[in-house]
Amino acid sequence: MSKSVKKVVLAYSGGLDTSIILKWLQTTYSCEVVTFTADLGQGEELEPARQKALLLGIKPENIFIEDLREEFVRDYVFPMFRANAQYEGVYLLGTSIARPLIAKKQIEIAEKTGADAVCHGATGKGNDQVRFELGYYALKPDVTIIAPWREWDLRSREALIKFAEEHQIPIAKDKRGEAPFSVDANLLHCSSEGKVLEDPAVEVPDYVYSRTVNPEDAPDTPTVVTIDFEKGDAVAIDGVKMSPATLLAKLNELGRINGIGRLDLVENRFVGMKSRGMYETPGGTILLPAHRAIESITLDRGAAHLKDEIMPRYAELIYNGFWFSPEREMLQALIDKSQEAVTGSVRLKLYKGGVHVIGRESPYSLYSQDLVTFEEGAVAYDHRDAAGFIKLNALRLRTLGSRRRKLGV
Amino acid sequence: MSKSVKKVVLAYSGGLDTSIILKWLQTTYSCEVVTFTADLGQGEELEPARQKALLLGIKPENIFIEDLREEFVRDYVFPMFRANAQYEGVYLLGTSIARPLIAKKQIEIAEKTGADAVCHGATGKGNDQVRFELGYYALKPDVTIIAPWREWDLRSREALIKFAEEHQIPIAKDKRGEAPFSVDANLLHCSSEGKVLEDPAVEVPDYVYSRTVNPEDAPDTPTVVTIDFEKGDAVAIDGVKMSPATLLAKLNELGRINGIGRLDLVENRFVGMKSRGMYETPGGTILLPAHRAIESITLDRGAAHLKDEIMPRYAELIYNGFWFSPEREMLQALIDKSQEAVTGSVRLKLYKGGVHVIGRESPYSLYSQDLVTFEEGAVAYDHRDAAGFIKLNALRLRTLGSRRRKLGV
Amino acid sequence: MSKSVKKVVLAYSGGLDTSIILKWLQTTYSCEVVTFTADLGQGEELEPARQKALLLGIKPENIFIEDLREEFVRDYVFPMFRANAQYEGVYLLGTSIARPLIAKKQIEIAEKTGADAVCHGATGKGNDQVRFELGYYALKPDVTIIAPWREWDLRSREALIKFAEEHQIPIAKDKRGEAPFSVDANLLHCSSEGKVLEDPAVEVPDYVYSRTVNPEDAPDTPTVVTIDFEKGDAVAIDGVKMSPATLLAKLNELGRINGIGRLDLVENRFVGMKSRGMYETPGGTILLPAHRAIESITLDRGAAHLKDEIMPRYAELIYNGFWFSPEREMLQALIDKSQEAVTGSVRLKLYKGGVHVIGRESPYSLYSQDLVTFEEGAVAYDHRDAAGFIKLNALRLRTLGSRRRKLGV
Amino acid sequence: MSKSVKKVVLAYSGGLDTSIILKWLQTTYSCEVVTFTADLGQGEELEPARQKALLLGIKPENIFIEDLREEFVRDYVFPMFRANAQYEGVYLLGTSIARPLIAKKQIEIAEKTGADAVCHGATGKGNDQVRFELGYYALKPDVTIIAPWREWDLRSREALIKFAEEHQIPIAKDKRGEAPFSVDANLLHCSSEGKVLEDPAVEVPDYVYSRTVNPEDAPDTPTVVTIDFEKGDAVAIDGVKMSPATLLAKLNELGRINGIGRLDLVENRFVGMKSRGMYETPGGTILLPAHRAIESITLDRGAAHLKDEIMPRYAELIYNGFWFSPEREMLQALIDKSQEAVTGSVRLKLYKGGVHVIGRESPYSLYSQDLVTFEEGAVAYDHRDAAGFIKLNALRLRTLGSRRRKLGV
Repeated sequence: MSKSVKKVVLAYSGGLDTSIILKWLQTTYSCEVVTFTADLGQGEELEPARQKALLLGIKPENIFIEDLREEFVRDYVFPMFRANAQYEGVYLLGTSIARPLIAKKQIEIAEKTGADAVCHGATGKGNDQVRFELGYYALKPDVTIIAPWREWDLRSREALIKFAEEHQIPIAKDKRGEAPFSVDANLLHCSSEGKVLEDPAVEVPDYVYSRTVNPEDAPDTPTVVTIDFEKGDAVAIDGVKMSPATLLAKLNELGRINGIGRLDLVENRFVGMKSRGMYETPGGTILLPAHRAIESITLDRGAAHLKDEIMPRYAELIYNGFWFSPEREMLQALIDKSQEAVTGSVRLKLYKGGVHVIGRESPYSLYSQDLVTFEEGAVAYDHRDAAGFIKLNALRLRTLGSRRRKLGV
Repeated sequence: MSKSVKKVVLAYSGGLDTSIILKWLQTTYSCEVVTFTADLGQGEELEPARQKALLLGIKPENIFIEDLREEFVRDYVFPMFRANAQYEGVYLLGTSIARPLIAKKQIEIAEKTGADAVCHGATGKGNDQVRFELGYYALKPDVTIIAPWREWDLRSREALIKFAEEHQIPIAKDKRGEAPFSVDANLLHCSSEGKVLEDPAVEVPDYVYSRTVNPEDAPDTPTVVTIDFEKGDAVAIDGVKMSPATLLAKLNELGRINGIGRLDLVENRFVGMKSRGMYETPGGTILLPAHRAIESITLDRGAAHLKDEIMPRYAELIYNGFWFSPEREMLQALIDKSQEAVTGSVRLKLYKGGVHVIGRESPYSLYSQDLVTFEEGAVAYDHRDAAGFIKLNALRLRTLGSRRRKLGV
Repeated sequence: MSKSVKKVVLAYSGGLDTSIILKWLQTTYSCEVVTFTADLGQGEELEPARQKALLLGIKPENIFIEDLREEFVRDYVFPMFRANAQYEGVYLLGTSIARPLIAKKQIEIAEKTGADAVCHGATGKGNDQVRFELGYYALKPDVTIIAPWREWDLRSREALIKFAEEHQIPIAKDKRGEAPFSVDANLLHCSSEGKVLEDPAVEVPDYVYSRTVNPEDAPDTPTVVTIDFEKGDAVAIDGVKMSPATLLAKLNELGRINGIGRLDLVENRFVGMKSRGMYETPGGTILLPAHRAIESITLDRGAAHLKDEIMPRYAELIYNGFWFSPEREMLQALIDKSQEAVTGSVRLKLYKGGVHVIGRESPYSLYSQDLVTFEEGAVAYDHRDAAGFIKLNALRLRTLGSRRRKLGV
Repeated sequence: MSKSVKKVVLAYSGGLDTSIILKWLQTTYSCEVVTFTADLGQGEELEPARQKALLLGIKPENIFIEDLREEFVRDYVFPMFRANAQYEGVYLLGTSIARPLIAKKQIEIAEKTGADAVCHGATGKGNDQVRFELGYYALKPDVTIIAPWREWDLRSREALIKFAEEHQIPIAKDKRGEAPFSVDANLLHCSSEGKVLEDPAVEVPDYVYSRTVNPEDAPDTPTVVTIDFEKGDAVAIDGVKMSPATLLAKLNELGRINGIGRLDLVENRFVGMKSRGMYETPGGTILLPAHRAIESITLDRGAAHLKDEIMPRYAELIYNGFWFSPEREMLQALIDKSQEAVTGSVRLKLYKGGVHVIGRESPYSLYSQDLVTFEEGAVAYDHRDAAGFIKLNALRLRTLGSRRRKLGV
C-alpha cells in the first residue's frame, strides 16, 4: 500500500463490494477515482451504477459506462469458439474470456484520463486477479495495479459492512449477511462458487441455477433449431441473420427453456488449488457441437486434428489469463487460417438438457457421397490402393515384429 | 490372388457374408480354412456359427469359438477410457478398440494351427481393414493377409447371392436384398453406417437405433447411480463390485433405458474420406464423464493437462489401427502412470439422454476445502503470494508491451 | 500402364535416367511429352537439357526451362527456416523442400499446355515419389501420374542401358556402370545415398562429399561473419544486402571452405523403412543457429517455446510431402505470426566444421540488462515477487506431497 | 524473516557466500544450522568445507558431506539424456538437472536431523531458487524455506564483505572484489553468467572458459571414439565398461581436449526475463548425438517422432524445476518405455569443437539393407504398394483441391 497513485481506473459494478473498494481507494490512496462500468450481458442495468458513483463523489467526467456486448461476442467469444475451446475437457471458459476485454477497456480509459493505476475487485485466491492483471501489464507495462482484496485488512463480512457504514455507503438489506455463494455473469455464462458449493460430493442445490430451467422441468417436446455459420462464426438462427450478441442471447434463451448448459465441475485453478464451480452456459453449450458439426463436413482431417491437438493448450492460455500473449495470438492465427470454408448450416435438436446434432450441410462440404458409397467411386478411390496403403503403414511394425520374434525386444 | 496359401484363419461371424468368404477361400485358394468366432458382446449366440461352419465343411478341430468379453473390457476398453479418449472430440472408438483383440486372437490361432494366412471381412473403403491388418502384421510380420472385398469380383449384392446359391450357402430371407445400413456391434457400442445414413443433412431414422430408447421415450424420473473407481478403472456400481464386462453391461442397460449414448457423426477416415456414422455407446457415454469426474479430484493439474494434450494423438492412433505400435504403448505407459490414485466414487444423474455428474469423493482427494474457502487457509496459501506470482508471470508480457509501445512491434 | 494419356509433363534433368524415361513415355504411352527443366541451384547448366530434349524429338514449344533459384529460397527455404525445422532432430530437409516447387511448376505447365499427366523420375522406395505426387494431386486433383520406376520392367542397370542403346539415347561413358551412390542437389543441399553408403556402420568415404572441404582441410583461422535478419529472413551478409538465392549461395561458399554442414544420418522414411544418407548443407547449417540466435533476443519465451513444440510436426509434414496441406499452412501462419520482430544481426565464427554464435543485437531486443543484473532493476523486478511465484507454483506439488506422506500415493 | 525456525539444513559449499549465509542464519534466526556439502563433480575438494563449518561453530554431527556423483549421473543425467533433452533447442540443462538431487538430499537430512527448515544460496532473480524450492516443497510440503538473497539487506559486495569481517569469516584475497562473472559447476557442465557476459553482442572472453580448450588450440588430428549403449544409457567407451560417473568424466576429458561443448546462449528464464549464459558441457555434447545415433537404428519411427514432439515440454519441465512433478514422471515413463532396445555402439569423430557420427551398429538394429537397396527386397516391400499408399494419403488433398477449383476455398 506504499504505492503512490494519482488516478485510478476502477472496474466498478455499482454493487456493494466495488463501492466499498471505491471508497477504500479514496481513503487509502487519496487519489482520484475513475469508474468503469461495462455491460457484458450480465443482466444488470448500468444507470444505477452511475448514480451510485456520483453519490460516492466521483466526478461526472470520471464515470465511464459502456455497452460491450457486441465487441465481447464478436472479438472474444467467437474467436474462442472457432477453436472449440474447452478447459479440462468440459469448461467453456465463460468467465475467463470476459476478463481481457474489461482489462483492455480499463487501460484505454487510463490512457484517456491520464490515470496511472487500475483496480479490480477480484479476490486473492482466484484466477480472475491473474487474468485482469496480466491484461493490464501486457497493455500498459508501467501501470500500477491495486488489488484491494490482497491489500486491505477487511478480512470478514463484518469488517466490510462496518467500513461501508462508516463511509455512508448504502447497503441493500440482502447484502448484510454473507452470500451463500458468489456469482459471475456475462452474456456467455453465469458461474457460481463458494460456500454451499464447496463440498464436491454434495449436489448443487437447485436455487443456485439462474439461467436455465431444470432439465426435468423443460418442455416434453424437443426444439429443433438451425444455425448458419460463415467462416467459423454463427451468423443466423433458423435463417434469421443476427449480430453476434443478439445471436448468442437468442441461443441463451433456447438453452434456458430446454435446460441446457449446466455444468458441475471441480477444476484446477492457475493459482494452484482445485475449486468446485457451477457453470451455466446455455447458448455456448449449443454453439460448441454446432460448430464442431459444421467443421465435420467443411474442415479437412489434417486441419481438424491439428486443431484438436492444440486446443487444450489454447484453452489453458485463456483460462490462465494469457489472452494478450504472443502464443495465444499465434494459435489464433493457426485457428483462424482453418476457418475460411467453415460455412454452412447445422440442424440440432434441443431436449431436456441435451443438444443433438441431426443434420449438417454446406456449399463447401468435403463430404462426398461418391467416395463413401460401397459402389466404387468413379474417380479417386480404388479398393486395391488400400492394400498398398496398409502395407507401407505396416512396414515399420513388421520390422519391429520381426525383431521381437528374433530377439525378444 | 496369386498368393499361395495353405491354411487361413478367418474371422467368422456365422453370417451370410463371412460364410460366402469362407466358401470363396476354399474355392479360390484351395486351402484349409480355420474359423474363429468371438463373443465381444455383440449380442449374438455363437453356437449357430459352429453348426454353420461344420455344414460348410470346416473340420471340428478347425473351429475356434471364444468368449472374449472380459478380456475385451479389461485389456482394451478400460485402458482406453483411462485416457478419456475421444476421436475428433466426440467418438468413443467403439469399433476401433475391438479390432486389435480380434487380430491378436486370429494370429494366436494361426500360430497354434500352423496357418500361414489370416482373413477378415472388412470392406476396402473403411478403417477396419487397416486396423485388422496392422494388427496382423505387427504380431506376425510374415503372415499372408487375404482381404476378399479387395480381391474378388463379387461387386454387387446380386453377385454375392448368386455365389451363395451356387455353393449351397443357406440364405436367410431378410438377407437377399441389400441391408438399409451396415452394423458393427460389441459390448462397448453399436455402429451403423451406409445407405440410409449417407446424406449427412438427413436425420438418422429412428429404426436405426437398437441399443437405446429415444430420449423422449425414456423415464420421466432420473436415475441416480454411483460408480466406484480403483486406479482409473470402474469396479463397482451402486456399491456392488463387478467384473469389467459385467460392469459395462450394467452401464449399457442403465444407458439404454435412459436414452443415453446416441451419436450422429461425420468423421474423417484414415483411408482419406469423410463418412457419416451413427453410434450408440450407452455405457461408455456414462463412463467417460464419470472417469473425468473422479480424475477431477484425484489427479494433479500437471498430470491432467498433459493427459488432455496427448489424448487426441492417442485416440487417433487407436482409430487408425495402431494399437500394437510403440507410440501407443509409450502413451499408455504415460497414462497408466497417472492413474495410481484415481480411486473413489462418482455420483451421476441419468436423464433422457443426459449424464450429469452431481458428486465425487475420494480418500485420495487433492481437493482441499481449506485452500479454497475465502477464509485464508492455515498453511499453504497466502494472498500476498499471488502478487508475486502474477508479477513474474507478467514480466515477459510487460517487456513485450514496452517494446510495442516504443517500436510498434 | 493401362492409363490413357495424351500429353505428359516430365520433370527432365537432361541426364541419362530422365532421358530414358522420356523415350519410355513416348513408346509406352504414345503420348506427347513436355519437358520441364528447372534450375534450383543444383549446379548444372540447363541448355544441354534443351539440346537433348530436341534430339529426343521434343517440340521446341514443349521444352520449358526455368531458373527457380530465387523463388525456391524466398518462398520455400526461408519460410521453413523461420520454423527452425529439423527432421529427427538434425536433418535440414534439403531434398524435401525442393519437391513441392517442382510439382507446382509441372502442374502450372500442364495447365498451360493442356497436358493431362505428369511424370517424375523418383524411385518406388523413397520419399520423393510421395512428395511429388502429393503435390501434383493437391494442385490438380484429376491429374494422371506416371511413375516409371514403379511401372516399367527395366529392373537392372543393364536393362536400362540396353533400352537406351535401342533408342539411340546418348550414354556418357561414366554412366554405363552403376553409380556408387545416388545424388540429389539444389541450392540448399546435396544428398547422397545408396550403395557405398548403405552400411550405417561404415564411415562415409571422402569422395562422396562434393560441397564442402573436409573440416581437417579447412583454414586454420576462423571466419567471422555477420548475418542480418528482417522479419525472420536473412537479408544481408557482413552488411551487404543480397537477394535470397544470392545470400544462400554466399553462405554455401562460406560453409564450403570451412568444412561446414556435413551430416551422416540414418533416418526414417515416410514409406516405412530406415535409410542412411549423407547430407551437405553448408549454408543452411550456418543459417539455422543464426536464426535461433536472432530469435533468442527478439522472440518472447511463450512464442519461442510454442515454436519449438510444433517444430517436429512441421518438419515431419515437409519431410512426408505435405507442403500443400492445410495443416502445414496453418502451422506456417502460426510461425509467420511470430516473426514480425525477428530483426537484427548475428555474429558467427566459422571454424573447421563448427558454427559458433558469438554475438547478437537488435533494435527490437527483449533482452534487458536492467532486468538481469544482480543490482535490482528499477522497474519491473522485485526479488520478493519470486517467493510468491514459487509458492503458488509449488502449491499443487505440496498438496501432492501431503497426500503421498499420508496415503502413500 | 518473521518465520520461526529451530533447525535449518543449508546447502553449503564452503565458499565465502554460503559461509556468510551460514553465519547470517545463526544470527538472524538464532537457529541450529546443519550443513550439507555434496560432490556432484564440481571439481572442488570437500574436506575444507568440513573444516570451515567447524570453524563457524557447526557441531560435527551437523556436518554432512556426500559424494553424489554416481547417483547424479545414473538417476538424473542419464534419464534426461534418454529424452535427448535440450532447452530452447540447444541447452543441455547442466545446472537444472543438479538442483533436484541437492534438494532431495537436503530434505532427507532434514528428516534425519529433525530440521524444520532448509536454505539455499541462490539469488532472487534466477531459476535455481525455483528449482530448489519446488523440490523442497514437493518432498516436504510443510518445510520452511529460507532464501537469504531474497530476505537480507546485504545488497552490495561491500555489505557482504563487511558482514564477513564483522563475523570473523575468513575471506580469500581474490574474493574481496566482485567476481567478473558467476559460475556453477558439476560433472555435467560448467556455466558462467553475469558481469562481463551481460552484453549479448559481445563475444565471451577466452578466460571465462575453464573446461575446454579453445577449438583452435585443439589437436590437429581427430579423436575417434566408440560409445556403447545399453537400454538407452552409455555403458562403455572404446569397449571399456565404466560406471556412469566414470564414463561421463571420461567423455568430459575427451571433450575438453578437443574443444567440444562450448555454448554461448541467450535463454528465457522461468522467472520471466532473458539472460545470457556461457555453458561448457564437453561430455554431454558428445553424448547427445551419440544417443541420437544409436536410437536412429534401434528406435522405430513412431517412437522416435513421439519422443521428439514431447521433448521440448520435458526439457522445459526440468529447466523450470518440475523434476518432482507428476507430469515429468509421466513423460519419463513414456521415454523409458521406448529405450528397451536402444542398445549398440556408435562411433564418433571428435575434432576441434565438432562431434561427427561416423558409424553405428546394434544387435537390435531396425535398419534393414534388404529393404533399402534398389534391388527389390525379397519380403516386405513391393514398389507397387507405394502407389496405393500415396493415393490414399492424397485423397483428402484431392478433395480439397477439387473444392478449391470449384469454389475458391
